[in-house]
Amino acid sequence: MASDSPSTRSRLLAAAREEFTDRGLEGARVDRIAVRAGVNKERIYGHFGSKDQLFQAVMAAALDEHVAALGLPSDDLADYVGRIYDFHATHPELLRLMQWESLSHREQPLPDEDRRASHYAEKVTALAKTLDTKPSLDTAATLLILIGLAAWPHTLPQLTRLILGPEADNAAARRVLREHVIDFARRALHSATRQSTRL
Amino acid sequence: MASDSPSTRSRLLAAAREEFTDRGLEGARVDRIAVRAGVNKERIYGHFGSKDQLFQAVMAAALDEHVAALGLPSDDLADYVGRIYDFHATHPELLRLMQWESLSHREQPLPDEDRRASHYAEKVTALAKTLDTKPSLDTAATLLILIGLAAWPHTLPQLTRLILGPEADNAAARRVLREHVIDFARRALHSATRQSTRL
Repeated sequence: MASDSPSTRSRLLAAAREEFTDRGLEGARVDRIAVRAGVNKERIYGHFGSKDQLFQAVMAAALDEHVAALGLPSDDLADYVGRIYDFHATHPELLRLMQWESLSHREQPLPDEDRRASHYAEKVTALAKTLDTKPSLDTAATLLILIGLAAWPHTLPQLTRLILGPEADNAAARRVLREHVIDFARRALHSATRQSTRL
Repeated sequence: MASDSPSTRSRLLAAAREEFTDRGLEGARVDRIAVRAGVNKERIYGHFGSKDQLFQAVMAAALDEHVAALGLPSDDLADYVGRIYDFHATHPELLRLMQWESLSHREQPLPDEDRRASHYAEKVTALAKTLDTKPSLDTAATLLILIGLAAWPHTLPQLTRLILGPEADNAAARRVLREHVIDFARRALHSATRQSTRL
């Protein structure tokens, strides 16, 4: 038999994603990941080097899936907001990983920082093109706002429940919330476009 | 001398807020809080009962400050968004506490749930009045969106840096971002108001 590395690696990444999503970088335990993956703990170090590097690989994989699923901002930006909303509603791991990251006390640079920054730079460029302008701090701020609008209800689910009340978890309420998020983006962007056309 | 309880209690709450903000409910250690407050560990249990109840007291105090500082949504809602933005920019503890809470595995109910829910219900009612409508799921969704718009750049600071780029931390970039957040809210709300006036 040839090496079993590819499947071992992907089993380890899946087990590590689960563990890091649950417990964060500080709380995660490599031996628990090994048990979950059915792999000897030593092989984790063989494949990834350290817990930090394993976290980095998990974050990179989660972000790659996110980029592949969403694509770039394009003509219908409110639709783009809806896609971000749906992605996080069905893939809670990425936001949880990012929250663990923001709460941890790790120093700069971030795991996979350069590649992540260039993903966002690509999005800012695509957004600028859609808005018929040049990439700038203004476009970057708009991208950050659109992402936040879509991600927010999934970021602090307990706040969403506190504000929407007991019905927050039913499907009808979720549809109303999703529509509000998309409409809010559409109205703000539409008004901005008309303003810049008038100028 | 009479009891030293009031000042002991407030020293303990301050030390506990620092510890919980840093490390969350699971990661916080009562003995570290005792050392920070310069108080015997046993007195924490005497004052608060348990680590969970101490977290609840910390969250309640942080939310009370937030409510007192911000007031209710009122006529100028974009200004209200600006006030939420400024509060979180200068008081990062509350958002961190809420993120720890959302990442933890505690069961419902939340710490201080009833009182928190009624704070938000009061805000929804004030927002409905401002929008000249009745409190409803729609108004609640709008409140959630306005809070998210303002809080997002402070929730995942590493994302804000990745998207805005190396200049993200300078004061000029921060001003641009703040203005974008407020303008975005103003445009969406203005457009909504005009729409409902036309109907």
